[in-house]
Amino acid sequence: MDKKEDNRDEEEEQVVNPWEVSSSGGKIDYDKLIDKFGCQRLDQSLVDRVHRLTGRPPHVFLRRGVFFAHRDLNEIMDAYEKGEKFYLYTGRGPSSEALHLGHLVPFMFTKYLQDAFKVPLVIQLTDDEKCMWKNLSIEESERLARENAKDIIACGFDITKTFIFSDFDYVGGAFYKNMVKVAKCVTYNKVVGIFGFTGEDHIGKVSFPPVQAVPSFPSSFPHLFPGKDHLRCLIPCAIDQDPYFRMTRDVAPRIGYHKPALIESSFFPALQGETGKMSASDPNSAIYVTDSPKVIKNKINKYAFSGGRESIELHRKLGANLEVDIPVKYLSFFLEDDAELEHIKKEYGAGRMLTGEVKECLARVLTEIVERHQRARAAVTDEMVDAFMAVRPLPDMFN
Amino acid sequence: MDKKEDNRDEEEEQVVNPWEVSSSGGKIDYDKLIDKFGCQRLDQSLVDRVHRLTGRPPHVFLRRGVFFAHRDLNEIMDAYEKGEKFYLYTGRGPSSEALHLGHLVPFMFTKYLQDAFKVPLVIQLTDDEKCMWKNLSIEESERLARENAKDIIACGFDITKTFIFSDFDYVGGAFYKNMVKVAKCVTYNKVVGIFGFTGEDHIGKVSFPPVQAVPSFPSSFPHLFPGKDHLRCLIPCAIDQDPYFRMTRDVAPRIGYHKPALIESSFFPALQGETGKMSASDPNSAIYVTDSPKVIKNKINKYAFSGGRESIELHRKLGANLEVDIPVKYLSFFLEDDAELEHIKKEYGAGRMLTGEVKECLARVLTEIVERHQRARAAVTDEMVDAFMAVRPLPDMFN
Repeated sequence: MDKKEDNRDEEEEQVVNPWEVSSSGGKIDYDKLIDKFGCQRLDQSLVDRVHRLTGRPPHVFLRRGVFFAHRDLNEIMDAYEKGEKFYLYTGRGPSSEALHLGHLVPFMFTKYLQDAFKVPLVIQLTDDEKCMWKNLSIEESERLARENAKDIIACGFDITKTFIFSDFDYVGGAFYKNMVKVAKCVTYNKVVGIFGFTGEDHIGKVSFPPVQAVPSFPSSFPHLFPGKDHLRCLIPCAIDQDPYFRMTRDVAPRIGYHKPALIESSFFPALQGETGKMSASDPNSAIYVTDSPKVIKNKINKYAFSGGRESIELHRKLGANLEVDIPVKYLSFFLEDDAELEHIKKEYGAGRMLTGEVKECLARVLTEIVERHQRARAAVTDEMVDAFMAVRPLPDMFN
Repeated sequence: MDKKEDNRDEEEEQVVNPWEVSSSGGKIDYDKLIDKFGCQRLDQSLVDRVHRLTGRPPHVFLRRGVFFAHRDLNEIMDAYEKGEKFYLYTGRGPSSEALHLGHLVPFMFTKYLQDAFKVPLVIQLTDDEKCMWKNLSIEESERLARENAKDIIACGFDITKTFIFSDFDYVGGAFYKNMVKVAKCVTYNKVVGIFGFTGEDHIGKVSFPPVQAVPSFPSSFPHLFPGKDHLRCLIPCAIDQDPYFRMTRDVAPRIGYHKPALIESSFFPALQGETGKMSASDPNSAIYVTDSPKVIKNKINKYAFSGGRESIELHRKLGANLEVDIPVKYLSFFLEDDAELEHIKKEYGAGRMLTGEVKECLARVLTEIVERHQRARAAVTDEMVDAFMAVRPLPDMFN
């Protein structure tokens, strides 16, 4: 399944799995990752195809390459073109109370996919995983799952097309049967190869991969997809989740299902620079959706790694190094206006614009997003959470 | 947890775990097993105590040492004596359609315990386990579970005190939460030490021990034992299941529960002789509860290993070897009349009674049991199975 690693190319070792993202070379080499994982690059022709099929402009994250890799996206578009629908599956491990902007990336993108393709969506909250990996109590994991559900709902998902579930609530029945089917097809040696478990890891870790695998199969949701065992599934996620779905895709045909398709994002960089994912243990490494405008401004001014030069004179002469500049990176995620972004990159790169101006622009853009999110989240009631998480049919999910 | 094996005593190697019972020496050495597993011998004083506490004569299986080992039975009797109730937990892996007499042993005994102590009982049908180990389809495992439930119900359990559940039906919710709690406390190396899994075993096997562990904890049954997290549990089972409960007892105090107590039986011997458990793959190795009187008679006459001598003359002179005689063994399980059993052993052992007579007596005893079972099973309707398996409170379970 994995391509053999070419050791000559592995001078800079990088580790990307669901629990660790690091690179001895600092930056993650995404080309190498695509090669190592054996997925495909999401090229312009595929972006154009999504544009054509949905009749709406591709999301910023798609046209700017945030979602940069895929598996079988062409196949799922082929089927869609012939009138065959699919469903979306994404998820979150609820390990913290407040989300940061990086956490929102897959949900913002999934919301776009749901709207553009008019398809149902299941969102898995892996409270069991976080209870086992982060040593949280069951009660605390469940509480965080509900809190995170509020942030997810605040992203604007359509309740007539969306089912959110927590593993502690939902594992059982058809879902558990699929877990057993998957588990039967995967040896311990195989999960060690994929996830790097050791003999001293607890067996909860070894038991978990099937839990994340089975939402890829429509029969895990008998209230949503009865008699639709051949419905295809598309999973938008960050590429660190790829190991779970390599395993899932390996198993799927052996138990009578389509392989899920994937559309995979790069990591949202830390304020301090592009060395992987943000760290939950360092609040100053990220902008949280709970941050106030003042905090956002301070974090950006104080911590956002700048590609600007040491002195104004040098900056005017050489221009900013856009390759390492975090404000520009963040703007390329969140400033929707292509022309404005291009203008900033051009002026800043030529030294005519200073870091302070770019940071001011970023603070304005992020404050707007965060305040909009905060307003939306404040409107999410417990009843709405219950409604999204109710085990129920969704009669209008394909309309 | 396990005692260190004394290698000088291990000239004859014996393997006893949930999937294999064998001994290079032929017969299982139960004393060695007690020593190796670290459980206690169930002595006469404990049998007398059960007699005193329940006010009824101990079951044949208890007074004749079929249930010969235990863990913490004294502790659970101490608590019972002080007015503290407990619940019973036993189970079956539904791997075959028809049960043989050996399969009935734990259920007959559990029925006695339920009646004698007036306590509730949960019976786990591990259809998930059999699906994974025997490579049965989920549908076939579920079907066998229901068929076996009928045989279990036919043993006479009290529906006001008994909850039967299949894992495929019931895993989820509080039960799944306890599975996660247990899994977090057990390393892969630990289950390898206990169960002997290898890297080529599928992860379903590694995931299963918590499933069999958690019925030992009352909170796994919120419809039965709400707010009774400190209710004690007594598990009647064959001693090959001990590894599961050694693991469970190790974990219990770490997650806030009592260690389950155990009362453990030896194995019901095959017709061909005492070399372990009967084999499901050889129908002539056992009497099935579906056998006709004629089949029972033929099997006993043809296959039951006899301790009688080669010739009548020699038999009259030396007497039967009761140590290896299967008809006598079987009678010691199923002939309730102590005086009659003693008479047979005395006359047969002295050579005054011949094998044919003993076999005739055994055929009569077993035919009566099997016919009684067949009548009871024929009366078990699908509605009764549903009623026993309904997730419901049992308001009279302690009366």
